[in-house]
Amino acid sequence: MLAPVHDQRFGLGRTVRLAEPVPLASGQSLDGVAIAYETYGTLAADGSNAILICHALTGDQHVASPNPRTGKPGWWERLVGPGKPIDPAQHFIICSNVLGGCSGTTGPGSMDPTTGRTHAMRFPVITIADMVTVQARLLDHLGVEQLQAVVGGSMGGMQALSWAAQFPERVRAVVAIASAARHSAQNIAFHEVGRQAIMADPRWASGNYTSDDAPAAGLAVARMAAHITYLSEQGLTERFGRRLQNRAALGFGFDAEFQVESYLRHQGLTFTERFDANSYLYITRAMDYFDLAAPHDGLLTTAFAPAATAGTRFALISFTSDWLYPTAESKRIVRALHGAGASTSFCELESPHGHDAFLLDAPEMNRIVAGFLNGLAER
Amino acid sequence: MLAPVHDQRFGLGRTVRLAEPVPLASGQSLDGVAIAYETYGTLAADGSNAILICHALTGDQHVASPNPRTGKPGWWERLVGPGKPIDPAQHFIICSNVLGGCSGTTGPGSMDPTTGRTHAMRFPVITIADMVTVQARLLDHLGVEQLQAVVGGSMGGMQALSWAAQFPERVRAVVAIASAARHSAQNIAFHEVGRQAIMADPRWASGNYTSDDAPAAGLAVARMAAHITYLSEQGLTERFGRRLQNRAALGFGFDAEFQVESYLRHQGLTFTERFDANSYLYITRAMDYFDLAAPHDGLLTTAFAPAATAGTRFALISFTSDWLYPTAESKRIVRALHGAGASTSFCELESPHGHDAFLLDAPEMNRIVAGFLNGLAER
Repeated sequence: MLAPVHDQRFGLGRTVRLAEPVPLASGQSLDGVAIAYETYGTLAADGSNAILICHALTGDQHVASPNPRTGKPGWWERLVGPGKPIDPAQHFIICSNVLGGCSGTTGPGSMDPTTGRTHAMRFPVITIADMVTVQARLLDHLGVEQLQAVVGGSMGGMQALSWAAQFPERVRAVVAIASAARHSAQNIAFHEVGRQAIMADPRWASGNYTSDDAPAAGLAVARMAAHITYLSEQGLTERFGRRLQNRAALGFGFDAEFQVESYLRHQGLTFTERFDANSYLYITRAMDYFDLAAPHDGLLTTAFAPAATAGTRFALISFTSDWLYPTAESKRIVRALHGAGASTSFCELESPHGHDAFLLDAPEMNRIVAGFLNGLAER
Repeated sequence: MLAPVHDQRFGLGRTVRLAEPVPLASGQSLDGVAIAYETYGTLAADGSNAILICHALTGDQHVASPNPRTGKPGWWERLVGPGKPIDPAQHFIICSNVLGGCSGTTGPGSMDPTTGRTHAMRFPVITIADMVTVQARLLDHLGVEQLQAVVGGSMGGMQALSWAAQFPERVRAVVAIASAARHSAQNIAFHEVGRQAIMADPRWASGNYTSDDAPAAGLAVARMAAHITYLSEQGLTERFGRRLQNRAALGFGFDAEFQVESYLRHQGLTFTERFDANSYLYITRAMDYFDLAAPHDGLLTTAFAPAATAGTRFALISFTSDWLYPTAESKRIVRALHGAGASTSFCELESPHGHDAFLLDAPEMNRIVAGFLNGLAER
């Protein structure tokens, strides 16, 4: 392995490059995959304290330390960090940018070593399972045989659940928050809107754009549509209602007059400064493809059976106002886990903040995660 | 008045042009407004049987007869037509394309008589109240002094409620279905996504496009995003689930692989053949601006007080799975009407079809509307 490398548009942090090709769910394979990652804390001598954090669609490896490019705090510092439920003083914490991403790990924006050009849309379509395969290679590199826990929210939760299905012997516990075992028709539909918005931007150029001339307008629209799904009607009403932006009365124009318009436009614009449009296409596709039960004749219980046998324990958390990954999806997982005989705890938490609740201040979530991890450590 | 005229991109049907300018809520006024409309049935000698139907965002005047351009049946033939609750054998039925529309009534695609060019984005920003003002002028033209009822769903319901507030003496009854007295923050947000999708399309060209080179890609994305909000998660799951389109297994590409993707793309494409992008901007803006209580210090009861005094009767209907105009919005109206002392009936109907339920087969809705109108006729 060769480390570090920085061949991504947004490449930052520690990076390893895999010497062996990675076989993909599609049947293709990827050579020379780079993985950008962060670690916090120290691996115990018996290797028992490793926790893998999996990030969501637009996340990155900087879970508990500032993103060196944006200068913003780590995206889950409320849960991960000194004195937090996942604490570098106790745990060896690993977080890597997903395969297909744009924060240092190989993705469509990476150089294809076989052609000397960026992959662009020649990059193979990847899956959540492929992301997990690559994470397992990172653990090999770091000398981690078994995880104390894999923890993730949203798409991170999908990866956490996939870990249990793919590597049941390597994961003692799974924490899946605001997540699902499959992407619903409505979620596929929203993703398709985002993809079409990107592809409708002439600057997308079938994926062959340069970073100086990227499809920012299309990507911003994609982000705006997605962002609404991360919030809730109640949350939007409480935060913005029909309040006007910097004016006392309606302006009878098409500027951002309502605060909620201004907020959304800002979300769209700033997103284009930190995310790559082709990565957005590939990662949303991976999420749409996600259906953990599909390889098991649609039986989710079968997907979890090996983990149940291995003694893997599960904690699931959902939020009342999350309509993107509603409580019903978590309950479906819980029923399957119970069917498989796996040790499972589940809690639905009250929140007005929609899907984004897992990234915000959520003391009850922190207490549940802390209690679950402490329970594991005591066994 | 001069009739008929056909100066719209999609202009069809009977049209009158108003001799007097129309004052707008913005303070501007519009000269030479054309109104495209359909009527069915005959006005009774005592003028007592007129019913105005108001259409939704992308509707038109062809409520109960085929659209001559698309050849498709009238958009509300399930409720309006021979043997239906609103029946040309009993009622004189009027439906007009809204101000700002693209089906014959003056809108941004119309020729500005003062410049000889299309209005495009020089068209004034209009409101739901302005649409109603223009409808009242049409009634003047048709010799209808008072409506037996004004009936509408979605944005049509907003117009119906506005009729009660603006012309309480001219409307004996209001039927507002799947509607609201104000646009929520979430609804404004979804509309803003659609507008930004249109404006991000270089073919939009600040509104100065020709019909041969219209921003179809942007408008299609806008429609796709909006279309999701017209359905429900349950409906999408029942209709499409995760079923694949014309294939047995995942294709690992970016074609429309899931049926729901194919369906959405089709919705987006066909919409661009029948609707104008600038009209979409103006009408969504009018809906965002809609807040019936705003001119009354936020007191909806005050907005309805004159109608209550005039004896106007109200019927409201909502659908359980409608998350765009949820039942809570109808209940808010009902509370205000009760506060004003208006005769009000309300029913929430079970449906898995989301907001679109009011346009689909809804026997209970039909029974309620028929009963309500019969009750009026017997008074």
